[in-house]
Amino acid sequence: MNEFDLIRDYFTWPIKDPSVTLGVGDDAALFSLDYGYQLVTTTDTLVEGVHFSETTSAKDIAHKSLIVNLSDIAAMGAKAKCFTLALSIPKIDKSWLQDFSDSLRHLSEQYEVSLVGGDTSRGPLNINITMFGIVESSMALTRSGARPGDDVYVSGTIGDAGFCFWKLINDFVPSNQELKRLNCPTPRVELGLELKNLASACIDVSDGLEQDLSHILKASSVGAVIEVEKIPISEVLNVHIKDTNDWSIPLCGGDDYELCFTIPKGSEEALKKISESCNVKITKIGVINDSLGLQIEGFDGPRNSYQHF
Amino acid sequence: MNEFDLIRDYFTWPIKDPSVTLGVGDDAALFSLDYGYQLVTTTDTLVEGVHFSETTSAKDIAHKSLIVNLSDIAAMGAKAKCFTLALSIPKIDKSWLQDFSDSLRHLSEQYEVSLVGGDTSRGPLNINITMFGIVESSMALTRSGARPGDDVYVSGTIGDAGFCFWKLINDFVPSNQELKRLNCPTPRVELGLELKNLASACIDVSDGLEQDLSHILKASSVGAVIEVEKIPISEVLNVHIKDTNDWSIPLCGGDDYELCFTIPKGSEEALKKISESCNVKITKIGVINDSLGLQIEGFDGPRNSYQHF
Repeated sequence: MNEFDLIRDYFTWPIKDPSVTLGVGDDAALFSLDYGYQLVTTTDTLVEGVHFSETTSAKDIAHKSLIVNLSDIAAMGAKAKCFTLALSIPKIDKSWLQDFSDSLRHLSEQYEVSLVGGDTSRGPLNINITMFGIVESSMALTRSGARPGDDVYVSGTIGDAGFCFWKLINDFVPSNQELKRLNCPTPRVELGLELKNLASACIDVSDGLEQDLSHILKASSVGAVIEVEKIPISEVLNVHIKDTNDWSIPLCGGDDYELCFTIPKGSEEALKKISESCNVKITKIGVINDSLGLQIEGFDGPRNSYQHF
Repeated sequence: MNEFDLIRDYFTWPIKDPSVTLGVGDDAALFSLDYGYQLVTTTDTLVEGVHFSETTSAKDIAHKSLIVNLSDIAAMGAKAKCFTLALSIPKIDKSWLQDFSDSLRHLSEQYEVSLVGGDTSRGPLNINITMFGIVESSMALTRSGARPGDDVYVSGTIGDAGFCFWKLINDFVPSNQELKRLNCPTPRVELGLELKNLASACIDVSDGLEQDLSHILKASSVGAVIEVEKIPISEVLNVHIKDTNDWSIPLCGGDDYELCFTIPKGSEEALKKISESCNVKITKIGVINDSLGLQIEGFDGPRNSYQHF
């Protein structure tokens, strides 16, 4: 099988978005942008042995490859539109490719993002997706808008992926639900779009709450104080923390793909409505101040957020 | 060194393009498009041991990573604008990173393309660049516009990269000039932009002339006849072919990053002017017909274009 058969068989799907005028199969893809919009672009790579293990299924790898990018676009308050896939695989494994393709296609239809181009190479397993979203000009939600007095919020529960990973490396057996939180996270797509009109800064929690919130603080030249007891955690993680007092999992665990964002005072009612309309729990965990750095109340144990190297 | 120090030290450069409103350092990059333009996007990955060897310098790897994408954008008749870099590296090697960064930055300034975002991971060496270009709406140069009677042209000389590669694997010592053609090819950026108004179809010669021209034929539902004696080749390759009668190198060699394109009859004068203004040799090698498939006159030996798997 050559590259072109591979692309034809596994990665050529109908494109429903009329603004994409040329998709997979030419030197490049072509698409249009409505007047008044900006383009938002992000890229993320997953590497075998680093971001997933040899035993992770093709389905889950495809899921996570797309989700991590959808999450970045959501954190910008933007609407995801299309993506390219650069896939390095050690050999042609038709069963693996079919599972990967089916999963990616299913999710891309669910989130209405078109695969518009890509590249396939032989090499150690490495999946790169670059995603394109759109946002009304000057409306994107960045990391740099937090101001002293703003409240700090997170969506969903924090630390689920980290706790599942902790179980795996400590020879506990996670439940299917816990595995799903690690391998098949849900990007907060609707929430990001709604927050665009309300939040002052936003980031997705991929490298650990402490580290990701610190990015907002640094970009905004502000500080914050958060209370660990306020961090929303699952019941099973709550039991674990009650036993161990180890808050490092929700603080540093990463891979949750929840949103962490700041909201100017006085927007509580509007935020409540967004929470209800998106059906996503939203919890206040602290407040922005004019110090520099992040103060964490209620836990002074060791913390070790994810480091890429 | 963590990921953020790495990005700050090696991949955060001033962005001169005023339409890029947010570059490296947030969840995603943001940029605007002038009214009446479409976005053109392409992605290409280079893998160690597949696209380059362990001994290839960081400088040359950076060069080729950018060039292969610039070449794709040029083949669409578009103007390259910005790019993202997804870099998987086995370890932090400051000297390698500095050389890679210097080379990429130098070239990005030369071609006026801004690095707007990226991702760095630990993993086997794998460099992915996704590039964004712009083109006036409906003006992009695709593979599908060739019509019977159009002439087939190529730019520059064909087979230089393939001949250099042949020398390397057969224990001949290529000259510096030959190595440059393999490792540091020149994308036909100006030519692509000029051809937009003249050519009926275009592709860049990356996988071998025979294979790449066949993509035009297939996409355009036409055939072609070309004559090997008309393919422009360098003097050294000419000597080799006179000795061996082996035309497979220019037919199948790949990696030249010249443009292969089709021109409706009657445009010879306009094409000559473009050749002069871009200072690029342009040679007619054949003609499009209404058969299906590619007929190659003057060589019936074995051919084996580059296969990705």
